[in-house]
Amino acid sequence: MVFTERLQRVLQTVGGAKAVALVGRDGIAVERLAISDEPNLDLATAQFTDIAKKIQLANQELEAGSLREMIQRTDRYLVLLTTITNEYFLMMILDADGSLGRARFELRKVAAAFYDELV
Amino acid sequence: MVFTERLQRVLQTVGGAKAVALVGRDGIAVERLAISDEPNLDLATAQFTDIAKKIQLANQELEAGSLREMIQRTDRYLVLLTTITNEYFLMMILDADGSLGRARFELRKVAAAFYDELV
Repeated sequence: MVFTERLQRVLQTVGGAKAVALVGRDGIAVERLAISDEPNLDLATAQFTDIAKKIQLANQELEAGSLREMIQRTDRYLVLLTTITNEYFLMMILDADGSLGRARFELRKVAAAFYDELV
Repeated sequence: MVFTERLQRVLQTVGGAKAVALVGRDGIAVERLAISDEPNLDLATAQFTDIAKKIQLANQELEAGSLREMIQRTDRYLVLLTTITNEYFLMMILDADGSLGRARFELRKVAAAFYDELV
């Protein structure tokens, strides 16, 4: 299955999903799909790539190992980052009351599939 | 119930819990309890306070509203931040395979109790 189809399926499967993207460590999306104009997906991608880098630096200092997953919930959104390799991660944005459990599950499945193709 | 007792109870209740702290936005812990020397709790507190600030700035730009909760999972740890007020949050560190669901639940209960006392 190609990247786009996998991401499309995640968007359709997870309740409250707004956008999903396969992102490089430089903050540029390899593939991106959104079913809502908000929040701005390019801006979110750039910002959370930057934040993930800062978290990685903190984790190095704490000897915590590599970042596997990050989740943040705000008044309006849930944002999930799931690491695929050192070079790529998946980012997903949902409504604040979206299905976090299902989103984590589907992202992990897609990350495993991408891992096999990317490595 | 005083702060320390509430935090002690969370540490005892949640599987895999290593440390829990009530932290001010300046990165200084009001109260802190750890049952493990790793990771360094003061360093973790300072770093995740700083990261939470960066996430807040990103959320402002994205018009995402306030940060309610942040979770990160690394090779070795789970770190949870739960917002109480604009001035205070709870931070909890668990083993990577600790009970995330229970940790979120217990932190939310404690955050609600602290909210009533702090506001």
